[in-house]
Amino acid sequence: MKEESIEFIKSGGVTAPRGYLASGISCGIKPGKKSDLALVVSQQLADIAGVFTQNKVKAAPVIVSMQRVKKGKARAVVINSGNANACTGSRGIEDAEQMTTVTASFLGCSPDEVCVCSTGRIGVYLPMKKIIRGIEKACKQLNVEGGKDAAEAIMTTDTVPKQAALKVKIEDKEIIIGGMAKGAGMIAPNLATTLGIITTDASLSPEYLNSVLHSCVQETFNRISIDGETSTNDTILVFSNGLAKNTTIGMDSPHKGIFKNALRLVLDRLAREVLEDGEGVTKVVEILVQGAASEKEAELVARSIGNSLLVKCSWNGEDPNWGRILCAIGYSGANVDQNKIDLFYNGFQVVASGVRTETKESLIKKTVKMPMFSLLVDLHIGSGQYRFFTTDISERYVRINKGE
Amino acid sequence: MKEESIEFIKSGGVTAPRGYLASGISCGIKPGKKSDLALVVSQQLADIAGVFTQNKVKAAPVIVSMQRVKKGKARAVVINSGNANACTGSRGIEDAEQMTTVTASFLGCSPDEVCVCSTGRIGVYLPMKKIIRGIEKACKQLNVEGGKDAAEAIMTTDTVPKQAALKVKIEDKEIIIGGMAKGAGMIAPNLATTLGIITTDASLSPEYLNSVLHSCVQETFNRISIDGETSTNDTILVFSNGLAKNTTIGMDSPHKGIFKNALRLVLDRLAREVLEDGEGVTKVVEILVQGAASEKEAELVARSIGNSLLVKCSWNGEDPNWGRILCAIGYSGANVDQNKIDLFYNGFQVVASGVRTETKESLIKKTVKMPMFSLLVDLHIGSGQYRFFTTDISERYVRINKGE
Repeated sequence: MKEESIEFIKSGGVTAPRGYLASGISCGIKPGKKSDLALVVSQQLADIAGVFTQNKVKAAPVIVSMQRVKKGKARAVVINSGNANACTGSRGIEDAEQMTTVTASFLGCSPDEVCVCSTGRIGVYLPMKKIIRGIEKACKQLNVEGGKDAAEAIMTTDTVPKQAALKVKIEDKEIIIGGMAKGAGMIAPNLATTLGIITTDASLSPEYLNSVLHSCVQETFNRISIDGETSTNDTILVFSNGLAKNTTIGMDSPHKGIFKNALRLVLDRLAREVLEDGEGVTKVVEILVQGAASEKEAELVARSIGNSLLVKCSWNGEDPNWGRILCAIGYSGANVDQNKIDLFYNGFQVVASGVRTETKESLIKKTVKMPMFSLLVDLHIGSGQYRFFTTDISERYVRINKGE
Repeated sequence: MKEESIEFIKSGGVTAPRGYLASGISCGIKPGKKSDLALVVSQQLADIAGVFTQNKVKAAPVIVSMQRVKKGKARAVVINSGNANACTGSRGIEDAEQMTTVTASFLGCSPDEVCVCSTGRIGVYLPMKKIIRGIEKACKQLNVEGGKDAAEAIMTTDTVPKQAALKVKIEDKEIIIGGMAKGAGMIAPNLATTLGIITTDASLSPEYLNSVLHSCVQETFNRISIDGETSTNDTILVFSNGLAKNTTIGMDSPHKGIFKNALRLVLDRLAREVLEDGEGVTKVVEILVQGAASEKEAELVARSIGNSLLVKCSWNGEDPNWGRILCAIGYSGANVDQNKIDLFYNGFQVVASGVRTETKESLIKKTVKMPMFSLLVDLHIGSGQYRFFTTDISERYVRINKGE
């Protein structure tokens, strides 16, 4: 029998695993903000994998980090908030590279071993003097309990820092996974950038590290939406430095299942925190679509509902507006037969075969008043299913995003 | 030389052309509303064509009218507001058919010659007793100046009735085209249904009538968006009764160009009125995308910008947030090179080759303060272009759509 267990570590973050240091300091990019520059460092060279925005307009730090991640080895990531370094042309690329060069010189490693992320205002050049002084300061303050400082420094309009960590016991070894994220906070003209930095002391084969990150992101961060938009700067990185001294987990390891579960749990917790802390969000809604012609079609339907402005407005008004949901299903592009659609709110059936049921309106209204509820759609066409998380949209969202 | 001219008719609507009667009355579907049932009748059997919602969840009146339009001949359309008769199963179909039967019996024609439209609340059965009494009343009040009453009766949260009419002179004949529409008004749990009824006394071949309606709708109503959602009830119908006694315009007629221009002008005016009267709308924005790999790709980019919640919020805040626009271009799915993108607000270049220009911020801010402005995007990849109209989004939109 495999000896395996998972246990969350209270208030742990990127410095929870062995061999990681972090810091978060203010270099003055964003006046009035407590801190705006974060550094996460592995004390020894780590394997690295990354997932980047699919947006064809990519910020300079994304372009630079994509190249670094391809090499598969890294020591650190340097992150600033308050400026996205996006749409800044060749000067932006030079600035992002300089951030890695300066960090590398203080750490005594190659610039190739340093990744970089930015989040904040688009189209403005980075204040490099401030940033260079900031990197020096951040390097001096690196420490084994710096995870929370780093998580605070990457916040934009997030109201709370987002961290998670857990221990995985595999045979006689204890592996730790830690992580931090920033969410869908936007202030004009910023963007809804998602950043996630994951650290682990597990020993993993590079191939497995890359594969497990992609599949876990697919099942967590890629299934949440506040406004349906992907940013120029979205980045999720994972470092693994092997200090747990476990037998290396590869594509054929008997323990790859538990490691994947653990990594997914960390990413899932961070993704939920991002969603709950979305601008003006009052409700988190789980959408499960089943009975679609394929998983792809189920996804189309789930995203169509989850990104419908009219549906999100009605949830904000605590109105279980099933008509708008059927409408969003109808224009999703998926194959649907309106006379077969069933719809349930938290298990209460609202629509049967495309027509309103006798379920009491008051029962359904009560459900939609909850801060979290689920919506189940059954298309009764095939066996494709998809799960997706979304939120309501409020007047406050519009107010925040109107501009300065 | 062809003798051709076009002239708008002030405050004309569906009864402007020869041989059309209309009325708008209250039958009490929606308490407190001045009127909620409209009737438009051609005194003699007319040719008819229609364009219907692409939504796979179609309201009962859409299903019934689609069948009627296929036969190509009609005498009338009966329309109610306050109830969409959507998601009402087989009883909904029976009710829609009964509306046409009752109308036909008063007009002395076949039910097959009557179309039906509904707009309003989804998932509630029609109050048929009220509607039958209403149809009788509407038939009694039919008159040659009833266009405006009809335009008022189909309103939902529209603040003004929407009508247009014009005269086309072709050789020695005068053709008149009239029309009415209702717009993107929504009150929970209603939907953003677009209805348009066009009448003309032109003599047109059935093939040409169908073809010209589809291409004009493609260039007008299909190029506007407030929230990017298509409803279960969208319908545009055109009647032509031939009373202008012009030489029939067919697919090869020398005058088909001027007729198309005229019809497009009527639809364009109605579509603009719908847009300007959208819920909470403070700005109408024209988006022109050029230099795309194809027209289809240009459309992807235009719709991605025009439906971006973040872009629309920033316009509402009078913030010319070009970073969000580049971001929406990047996730549009179209082939783009971020280093080639140019962007102009009302002719002022804001972005050149993906990077901010030196154009004064104050100049651009002034542009975005206007109630109507244009955005030009040049991708510099190919020769595909597309024109699209959209609006900002306001806190009032969310408030209106929160529910009851």
